[in-house]
Amino acid sequence: MQLDQIGELQLLKEIRKRFKSTDKNIVVGIGDDAAVITPQKERILVTTDMMNEGIHFDLSFSAPFHLGFKLVSVNVSDIMAMCGEPAYLFANIAAKKNADENFLWGLFAGISTAINMYRMQLVGGDLSTSEDKIALSATAIGVADKVVTRCDASAGDRIYVTHTMGDSACGLEILKRLAPESKNVVQDIRLDDISPPQNINHLLLQTTGSLVQIDWNIAYSLIKRHLMPIARDSGEFLPYAASMIDISDGLFIDLCRICDESNVGARIYLDKIPLSKEIRYASEIMGLDFRHLATTGGEDYELLFTIPASVSSSHIINATCIGEIVEDERIVVDEAGRESALKAEGYQHFGP
Amino acid sequence: MQLDQIGELQLLKEIRKRFKSTDKNIVVGIGDDAAVITPQKERILVTTDMMNEGIHFDLSFSAPFHLGFKLVSVNVSDIMAMCGEPAYLFANIAAKKNADENFLWGLFAGISTAINMYRMQLVGGDLSTSEDKIALSATAIGVADKVVTRCDASAGDRIYVTHTMGDSACGLEILKRLAPESKNVVQDIRLDDISPPQNINHLLLQTTGSLVQIDWNIAYSLIKRHLMPIARDSGEFLPYAASMIDISDGLFIDLCRICDESNVGARIYLDKIPLSKEIRYASEIMGLDFRHLATTGGEDYELLFTIPASVSSSHIINATCIGEIVEDERIVVDEAGRESALKAEGYQHFGP
Repeated sequence: MQLDQIGELQLLKEIRKRFKSTDKNIVVGIGDDAAVITPQKERILVTTDMMNEGIHFDLSFSAPFHLGFKLVSVNVSDIMAMCGEPAYLFANIAAKKNADENFLWGLFAGISTAINMYRMQLVGGDLSTSEDKIALSATAIGVADKVVTRCDASAGDRIYVTHTMGDSACGLEILKRLAPESKNVVQDIRLDDISPPQNINHLLLQTTGSLVQIDWNIAYSLIKRHLMPIARDSGEFLPYAASMIDISDGLFIDLCRICDESNVGARIYLDKIPLSKEIRYASEIMGLDFRHLATTGGEDYELLFTIPASVSSSHIINATCIGEIVEDERIVVDEAGRESALKAEGYQHFGP
Repeated sequence: MQLDQIGELQLLKEIRKRFKSTDKNIVVGIGDDAAVITPQKERILVTTDMMNEGIHFDLSFSAPFHLGFKLVSVNVSDIMAMCGEPAYLFANIAAKKNADENFLWGLFAGISTAINMYRMQLVGGDLSTSEDKIALSATAIGVADKVVTRCDASAGDRIYVTHTMGDSACGLEILKRLAPESKNVVQDIRLDDISPPQNINHLLLQTTGSLVQIDWNIAYSLIKRHLMPIARDSGEFLPYAASMIDISDGLFIDLCRICDESNVGARIYLDKIPLSKEIRYASEIMGLDFRHLATTGGEDYELLFTIPASVSSSHIINATCIGEIVEDERIVVDEAGRESALKAEGYQHFGP
């Protein structure tokens, strides 16, 4: 049924039913003018991020489930990057008057899966019509006793990243090249797919005039990183980290943000940047430079943090050291030991 | 200059400079992954509202200043309606890549004027491109020891509203009928205009084929209520109110929300609903029914609340009693004493 055949009051009633909470710290949940919460720690953390159709997502390959899931993750990633615990979510959704209700319920299914994973509660938001494109935003609230900012990196700190770099950007490159018959397959992928949907074993990509095949497992692994990124838990690094940021716009641009805020420089070793086998394989098929994707590609939502030299590296398990903070120069060292300038390259809204 | 000639990094730098705060409860303000706040009361209140171009506003008569001011007020109004104290604001702004920077700075001037008026701090948000239309949203955070919800109205409570009803909807009707030469005049109006800009003494309205004049002072008073609504301070009602809501979608629909949540009925006396002299005058010129505007018109952002029968009416100064809460019937009584059904009429997104 179309949303305008259901009406706002009925939609809100259904949303309230689906997201009913028994959390005793929620004094007033969905359905009043504002949510009322009793925070259980001294400090609250608040972040908000938008996702706009045509800019942040393309409905030809992103399913509503993916959008809902990602909307939560991108906000949670900011809470994690301060070493907070995500707790409450508010979602703003604007869609065309005559949008199908399946769009909305798909979106909420994605939101629901994500907030359960991050142990959060949905406690409010706003539902509105838009004239044309879909506009989404969310606000995440977290709690913390101690936080880690971008400002406290010092010369001598080691620089770490979680997981691998550039997979999300590489996944997006695959998605952009998908042949029409493969786009529908992608819309159906979820977080825990083991075997490919419809028993296919490859996807078809359109590259400069010709069609090429990419192995399903490789493609799935990269596409999933783009459509349904998972915010990394920073809890294990909290006792040691001096500074932290999440990589949303690209490794280099986000590292430069730490340098700017902390008034320091950095020295990065290209061959230490962790890369998945999938990015190497898929980049070759598409004729792309995987180093470029890994250093400037956005939306990885991995953590980038620095650890004081005095902390033993044996404490840092699930992250890779890629360089060190220095006084003021910003240098990239390649495999052959050649040095070049570290530039703030990556995604910028209103970029030139 | 166009926003894409300035770039996101430079824009954020300028925004940080303009909204630098010395509030000691802000541990981390604009510029990190999330804001970090130490709330000074036991409970926090959170609300979020969108404003989308073509749905919530029309750039042919709304100036960026108006949008920024209203974005804050509509969110603050929700905090006030819970009897909270507004404290922190987060603003999300999406505009076209090539939008002029004056749009952004006008918007921030409106935000700045409003947050100063409400004694709030801007501590975060998100700046993004949109493919076409402007998409705005904000999240307001308030604090409170005690809150007033929609759920605690009881039979016998008196029903009150602040100020006058329908002025914003009437102002919108004027704006929709403005002749082109009067639209520019309206873009320049601000909160404290005493004499009309450009020394004009009337605006021109296009009504069914002919042009009519409307007195500047009348028009200004109503238009201002629509373009720059002011959230009412609920502080004086906090000691007495049993239930409260802000009137954003219309008096009747919002009153029905209190009835639904509190499981009660209401009896409203039409002749007690407070009306401005301006709405009577302007409605007549436009051939509109002022009663209809006052009972179903949206965006007044006045407070609607109920006071237990045991509280002396002498305590309630700046509000008008318009009826009472009853067991379960929902009745409107007109000037002649005739009764009709109170219906949830007013603005609904995804309405039929």
